[in-house]
Amino acid sequence: MEKEGAITERLRALREEMRRRKLTAYIVPTDDFHSSEYVGDYFKAREYLSGFTGSAGTFLVETDRAALWTDGRYFLQAQEQLASSGITLMKSGQPGVPSMLDYLGEKLVDGDVIGFDGRCVTGAFVEKLKETTAKKKIAFYGEEDLAGLVWKDRPPLSAEPVWELSAEDVGLSREEKFAKVREKMAKKGADAFLTTELSEIAWLLNLRGNDVTHTPVFLAYLLLARDGVVLCAQKDAFSQKIREKLEGAGVCLHPYESIEEQVALLPAGTRLLADERKVNYRLLQAIPKGVERVSGESPIELLKAVKTPREIANIRSAHVKDGVAVTRFVHWLKTRVGQETVTEIRAAAKLEEFRSETEGYLGPSFDPIIAYGAHGAIVHYEAVPETDAVLEPRGLCLADTGGHYKEGTTDITRTIVLGEVTAEERKAYTLVLKGHLRLGAAKFLQGVCGQNLDVLAREPLWREGLDYRHGTGHGVGFLLSVHEGPQSFRWRISKEAACVPLEEGMILSNEPGFYMTGKFGIRHENLVLVRKGEKNDYGQFMYLEPLTMVPFDREAIEMSLMNGEEICLLDAYHQKVYETIAPYLSGEELAWLEKATAPLRVE
Amino acid sequence: MEKEGAITERLRALREEMRRRKLTAYIVPTDDFHSSEYVGDYFKAREYLSGFTGSAGTFLVETDRAALWTDGRYFLQAQEQLASSGITLMKSGQPGVPSMLDYLGEKLVDGDVIGFDGRCVTGAFVEKLKETTAKKKIAFYGEEDLAGLVWKDRPPLSAEPVWELSAEDVGLSREEKFAKVREKMAKKGADAFLTTELSEIAWLLNLRGNDVTHTPVFLAYLLLARDGVVLCAQKDAFSQKIREKLEGAGVCLHPYESIEEQVALLPAGTRLLADERKVNYRLLQAIPKGVERVSGESPIELLKAVKTPREIANIRSAHVKDGVAVTRFVHWLKTRVGQETVTEIRAAAKLEEFRSETEGYLGPSFDPIIAYGAHGAIVHYEAVPETDAVLEPRGLCLADTGGHYKEGTTDITRTIVLGEVTAEERKAYTLVLKGHLRLGAAKFLQGVCGQNLDVLAREPLWREGLDYRHGTGHGVGFLLSVHEGPQSFRWRISKEAACVPLEEGMILSNEPGFYMTGKFGIRHENLVLVRKGEKNDYGQFMYLEPLTMVPFDREAIEMSLMNGEEICLLDAYHQKVYETIAPYLSGEELAWLEKATAPLRVE
Repeated sequence: MEKEGAITERLRALREEMRRRKLTAYIVPTDDFHSSEYVGDYFKAREYLSGFTGSAGTFLVETDRAALWTDGRYFLQAQEQLASSGITLMKSGQPGVPSMLDYLGEKLVDGDVIGFDGRCVTGAFVEKLKETTAKKKIAFYGEEDLAGLVWKDRPPLSAEPVWELSAEDVGLSREEKFAKVREKMAKKGADAFLTTELSEIAWLLNLRGNDVTHTPVFLAYLLLARDGVVLCAQKDAFSQKIREKLEGAGVCLHPYESIEEQVALLPAGTRLLADERKVNYRLLQAIPKGVERVSGESPIELLKAVKTPREIANIRSAHVKDGVAVTRFVHWLKTRVGQETVTEIRAAAKLEEFRSETEGYLGPSFDPIIAYGAHGAIVHYEAVPETDAVLEPRGLCLADTGGHYKEGTTDITRTIVLGEVTAEERKAYTLVLKGHLRLGAAKFLQGVCGQNLDVLAREPLWREGLDYRHGTGHGVGFLLSVHEGPQSFRWRISKEAACVPLEEGMILSNEPGFYMTGKFGIRHENLVLVRKGEKNDYGQFMYLEPLTMVPFDREAIEMSLMNGEEICLLDAYHQKVYETIAPYLSGEELAWLEKATAPLRVE
Repeated sequence: MEKEGAITERLRALREEMRRRKLTAYIVPTDDFHSSEYVGDYFKAREYLSGFTGSAGTFLVETDRAALWTDGRYFLQAQEQLASSGITLMKSGQPGVPSMLDYLGEKLVDGDVIGFDGRCVTGAFVEKLKETTAKKKIAFYGEEDLAGLVWKDRPPLSAEPVWELSAEDVGLSREEKFAKVREKMAKKGADAFLTTELSEIAWLLNLRGNDVTHTPVFLAYLLLARDGVVLCAQKDAFSQKIREKLEGAGVCLHPYESIEEQVALLPAGTRLLADERKVNYRLLQAIPKGVERVSGESPIELLKAVKTPREIANIRSAHVKDGVAVTRFVHWLKTRVGQETVTEIRAAAKLEEFRSETEGYLGPSFDPIIAYGAHGAIVHYEAVPETDAVLEPRGLCLADTGGHYKEGTTDITRTIVLGEVTAEERKAYTLVLKGHLRLGAAKFLQGVCGQNLDVLAREPLWREGLDYRHGTGHGVGFLLSVHEGPQSFRWRISKEAACVPLEEGMILSNEPGFYMTGKFGIRHENLVLVRKGEKNDYGQFMYLEPLTMVPFDREAIEMSLMNGEEICLLDAYHQKVYETIAPYLSGEELAWLEKATAPLRVE
């Protein structure tokens, strides 16, 4: 966390630049130029200026006031990190809290000028901004990166080496992918397609990099035309060999910064597919007059979400490796706590150690959440020295972590029993587990969306008048972002986000939770693979196969709340876990796994 | 069912009229001029020409071919009724079966002319028709009712007496309703609102009639302006007293047929709210140039769906009356079958008799479905002399019936055990019951839609690879149509039909089923009222209160498939049924009710 002194100084400098340009307000979003979920250090202007380290939030600096908007996952963390910085925390979605747009719509007056770095906001965002302020005479200034001007010792743009996945690793060559995307473009009547999403570019080219925190992608823009492909990226990051292969596939490499020129070169009459919800404002401004923009979601999104059989085979083995590492960690944690001093940070390091011992491990897929006791209620808690807690032989430790392996990406949460737990913890632990098991056992007809199934996970909590303030599950990429659309498990049906049927080959997380502020947090998360089941007169049935292979801690289960079916579901899962990872364990660890996965009924 | 001879003759006559007008094809929909679900006899042209009596379907007559499209509920019935008529049955939604629009889009060629009665199709339908055939030079002829020309002894337009509900009966005066609707019109920036939906007009005016089968509404069109109301209806149907009251409320009564003139009179500059998905094509054509049409759903729809406390109090008492009548019927059926000859038609008559003995009963809210054995698999079966089956003391009898009472509308399905049932019937009966109980026990956050909850009812069947081909539940009107939108329980999320959150005061049916063609059918239906439960940090919780008060037949329950929670749910419902209707029963019937509602556990 930043010391408030530093923050005050940075805001002063920023306001000085604002004053020079007569800006009433300056917006500092979390995004990089690519709407990435996580961003490289170069792009962490919001964190630099506000001191808030969460992965989501928007910072608004006015001449007399500064406010940060973030969502329910981060309320507690932001409260801590903004304390005494003078920055107002705006809790998005809470009653009486206006969205930043509504706030601006209210507050701005004729003649005001709003600034932002036009590369860090999407075209859609600026459209909304203009709608909200349409009734007033407001000017917009997106040409300059003011944060950059005041940011001393800003880290350079990352340009880590780009590496390649073979067609064997992923099941499709880049040429085959080009063809599939062009087919979809044709359906939409588009001649060219502009994507700025780093995961899409990495997927399409079967390349990976390391320019963005926790995401093996590289900084790039891509223009896919009928006849060729323009890739704007940092040349030095590509080996000669890869450059040649790209050339061979009809991909022209241009400088990263030259994308606006490349877009400006599009011949008149081109029908360009570009999603204003993803592509940044400045880039959309660069589209020449004669070019007609076709709106609509990327043709890559769904292709990327549906994994190939090769990818699935690889992902399964990634989960076996991860299952072994996490199981060893859980055993280590449960046996060491109370014997030696284990803090949250030390525990996270130990888990990283177990994963690192695994062949093919590349690194974490997101910041590990090792949250003991009350910290578990902070949904996206990250231990820092100031908060690092010592784990005591009592209560619950929530461990939400994930890794990237050459074979794929994992994401798992286990809530680990360190000793005695209260009746309240026991009940919540069991209700959440019931929901997790129920959703995991879902069998449904093709066409069903995550919005249809979410209730299965929430019902046990809802019955008790309880809930959790986050979705039940998100899509997961193949060696890409750990959060991937379009599929998800959530109940809200909005006109904005279309509901997407669950297709064979999609991967989602199943992670209901429950959080008692100041006391404890519980979350049970497996990744699941959507598969086809029987097909009969009623249609094609689908089901979910668990990929994650780590036992759930049985020591906090309140058996009186589990019905026979739920017990069978858990026993069956545990048996599968044992059969899958036992071969890779021995001695104490194996003996423990055997106990941890034994049928509940026996007790 | 019509004899095929008659059908052939009618089609010959229709084709003669088509030939005179050079029509390639003529569309005969099921609708009246008001998109009513059920229609008066005057409007049953599709039935007259095709012989198919189902409540849904579209008949397409070409010079050389005739085809009827209908949905899954009616496949078997249509098969029977169209047999040897030479009319092709098109099973909507089945693989390889094109929709009528796609069929026409394929088949038509330049120069073809499609005819239809422009008053029997919506503007939206004709729009779709034009889109589908846009690539070809097709003409449309909606000026004439050809079916009417060939229809000998067509029944006259119904003009039954209109009667009044007091503001006390429904909780809102017509003036208060006008104000609410105008408020919503203002929000949409509309100066006038055109509704042709009979239920909406009856609701708005607190009037009822008897011009449409099973629906206490009267034929009318209504124009609601800022300052006045134009009602186009059959004057003779209104008593002097009611006419005066309407006048007092600012309602001008004009002839039913004069609506097109009234619309044509709208002053230029008017912004007219009219839903092209509801208003018929001819009427939309009548809108003058200077008038701007505002699209969007009717402001009445949601107001009508959310019942007032007065309506709810009345509906509860209607359900007590109906519960008593149906319970007496079930007892009668279970004790008489095997003793005397009871056919499906006789049983339906007997149930009608029980209901008729009830004070305030007005008539059935839809054609009673008393379906024995294999007939139960015909989802909307209606016994006719040709099919009327004798009930034997074995198997299941599905009874889906409903009534209109002065206090409200009911709709209930019970599947009654007449004797021995097979293991297959027992299992299906229990799976459907589990789903019914699970959905009925749902507790959920405000904002949740029927699409979020539908899976609760289907899950027990889906788990077994089974399903039913209809929605799980529909809205129910207050002394109006037994099927009412916008709320429903179904899983398909379509862009066309917006998902509507379940609000306090809405009434829906909870009616999962299972159908084994040629063997048996099962459906368990209660009407439920959406109510507010506790409100806490997580939000406003909602739950469903059962309104229907008739025991479920316990004799087909496979106890080994019921978990403890489900048994508790059924016992609690049965206890409530007993406490509610026992006071109105005596002797044998009371003794039977006591046994029928006793806790399952005791057995």
